Amino acid sequence: TRKFKIAAIAGDGIGKEVLPEGLKVLEVAARRFGLDLEFTHFEWASCDYYLKTGTMMPDNWKEQLSGMDAIYFGAVGWPATVPDHISLWGSLLKFRREFDQYINLRPVRLFDGVPCPLANRKPGDIDFYVVRENTEGEYTNLGGIMFPGTEREMVIQESVFTRTGTDRVLKYAFELANSRKRKHLTVATKSNGIAISMPWWDGRADAIGKDYPDVATDKQHIDILTARFVLQPTRFDVVVASNLFGDILSDLGPACTGTIGLAPSGNLNPDRNFPSLFEPVHGSAPDIAGKGIANPIAQIWSGAMMLSFLADTPGVDGQRYREAHDAILAAIEQSLKDGPRTADLGGNANTVQVGDAIAQLL
Amino acid sequence: TRKFKIAAIAGDGIGKEVLPEGLKVLEVAARRFGLDLEFTHFEWASCDYYLKTGTMMPDNWKEQLSGMDAIYFGAVGWPATVPDHISLWGSLLKFRREFDQYINLRPVRLFDGVPCPLANRKPGDIDFYVVRENTEGEYTNLGGIMFPGTEREMVIQESVFTRTGTDRVLKYAFELANSRKRKHLTVATKSNGIAISMPWWDGRADAIGKDYPDVATDKQHIDILTARFVLQPTRFDVVVASNLFGDILSDLGPACTGTIGLAPSGNLNPDRNFPSLFEPVHGSAPDIAGKGIANPIAQIWSGAMMLSFLADTPGVDGQRYREAHDAILAAIEQSLKDGPRTADLGGNANTVQVGDAIAQLL
Ligand SMILES: CC(C)[C@H](C(=O)O)[C@@H](O)C(=O)O
Ligand SMILES: CC(C)[C@H](C(=O)O)[C@@H](O)C(=O)O
Repeated sequence: TRKFKIAAIAGDGIGKEVLPEGLKVLEVAARRFGLDLEFTHFEWASCDYYLKTGTMMPDNWKEQLSGMDAIYFGAVGWPATVPDHISLWGSLLKFRREFDQYINLRPVRLFDGVPCPLANRKPGDIDFYVVRENTEGEYTNLGGIMFPGTEREMVIQESVFTRTGTDRVLKYAFELANSRKRKHLTVATKSNGIAISMPWWDGRADAIGKDYPDVATDKQHIDILTARFVLQPTRFDVVVASNLFGDILSDLGPACTGTIGLAPSGNLNPDRNFPSLFEPVHGSAPDIAGKGIANPIAQIWSGAMMLSFLADTPGVDGQRYREAHDAILAAIEQSLKDGPRTADLGGNANTVQVGDAIAQLL
Repeated sequence: TRKFKIAAIAGDGIGKEVLPEGLKVLEVAARRFGLDLEFTHFEWASCDYYLKTGTMMPDNWKEQLSGMDAIYFGAVGWPATVPDHISLWGSLLKFRREFDQYINLRPVRLFDGVPCPLANRKPGDIDFYVVRENTEGEYTNLGGIMFPGTEREMVIQESVFTRTGTDRVLKYAFELANSRKRKHLTVATKSNGIAISMPWWDGRADAIGKDYPDVATDKQHIDILTARFVLQPTRFDVVVASNLFGDILSDLGPACTGTIGLAPSGNLNPDRNFPSLFEPVHGSAPDIAGKGIANPIAQIWSGAMMLSFLADTPGVDGQRYREAHDAILAAIEQSLKDGPRTADLGGNANTVQVGDAIAQLL
């Protein structure tokens, strides 16, 4: 059987508290299901490292990570000491781009035991995926400032959409929708206001959709789409969106299920020519960092997503990895129902206690 | 006393059904409070007009409207027959830009009698304003397509932010926050991902904020901000945002209070060198158009906003206009509590019945 090499990067803030719980659960799962996982820890891609060295990552970061099958990531960013354009663009956003992790896959699910901010929604009602384009679109540093510092000052910010980048995320989303029971795909757009890129994006969705006659496709403008996340969350199955719209929808979706503290994500390179990265959607959370009270479930769930992605590696029999994924998910579900709870869920358990409880349920 | 000249434009779809109810209420208010309103009706800025003439508006539309104090607008757009880039960019978005309606003011309020999709929220809990930049930003047709129709195809979409455009919307929002009890302003941003325009926008917020030491300012990234609309809607007082972010937040906010069917808006030119435009946030709603069942409250409330804006015209004693505004709002509140309800609120009253009920409460 094949060994999977995994880079473990805690990053900043609560990343350092939740990653160990994720690793704990993965190690228990590895023993229980006979998985072959080898973890290598890296201190960099963190603001601590930046403050010591003046750079977020060593020059040879790509060499160090390229042989890995996956990166298991905590969180990065420490607003007061290192600005975002250094911390995020120098690590997380660099991984996404330079490792061509072009899919950001983010499940949205309402669990039993998690108080839902929406009235009258039951577990099972909300269960969908946001598929976010993860390498291009609105996130750029292209453009500039004209007449800086004067009354005439003017800023251009450019978004970039390539056919390659757009088609592959659409294909991924159509495939995912096609593999699901409901076979429904919502395409986020704003073609009535953003006059060049969005009508073009709609056109690509039509073109790719031709190959998926069984998938029911529904284009929605981002404004009304956010409203429908709140008013009609049960209608969604798979939602595909640009980098920015996907960012928004993958915070809003989890919020509609109670907390973004549970939301995991996979930054996927489906072609597997670079490692994929798995991280909680929440950030480094400076307000609660260092207190040991962060909820580790998003991190643990991200680890389960990693196993499920590794399971699909061509030439590998992924059965045990799939079983481990399902067991972790079941343990999370069980623990949310009647296990210890962190403060964000109204409890007073600490991070380690929740990690232990989930590990014990495996 | 001064006469106010108002252009009444119904537009398309349910615009034709809700505008008459708005006018009905304004006419009753005018008699009751002694307002001097003169309405002129225009058939254009509609897809019907386009299909007859090949253009959304006559060449001299600006001349015809320039002498007006305000435009009272229904809705425009009829997706199946006229594409958005013609219908919207040829009317509504043209008004916003060419009449320099640089503020889009959108109240978000939870009313008694409206079922709230959020659990455990009471009327009074949610009561804030979204102040949206309305003339520039992400809504442009600048950019283009490279290598069209080929695999190398690539699209650039440019956003444009000017200091003039940004500072004036920030100032308006700070003034509004400063005039309110809580004096709290949330600035929507995405400076960690959109690397040029958004950090710059944050800088302008800091610069303008210096003049408002009493206003507590809170910058929030748009992703987590949408999550907080759902999870902590009571924390907001005034929210200021770019054109796109404001568009999103002003659909999401009303959704959190039950329905976007109630949400009004003012497209304001505070300098009063052009008419301002008042319209419901909802669109022409092709799915229910022609059935007479649309909820007219957003239109009626938009009319009340218009009176309040006219009341502040320099050199005019606006007292009676303010009273009329308050009376219409009170009538809307009363009617939502125990009056007839349209289908969107779970009732089976028609559009006219709701309009009549509100008019009778004045
Ligand atoms: C119709 C559309 C162009 C418009 C916008 O996005 O501004 C609408 O959604 C609104 O909010 O007024
Ligand atoms: C930290 C930030 C740049 C990032 C993003 O916007 O992509 C985060 O919000 C996320 O969703 O992963």
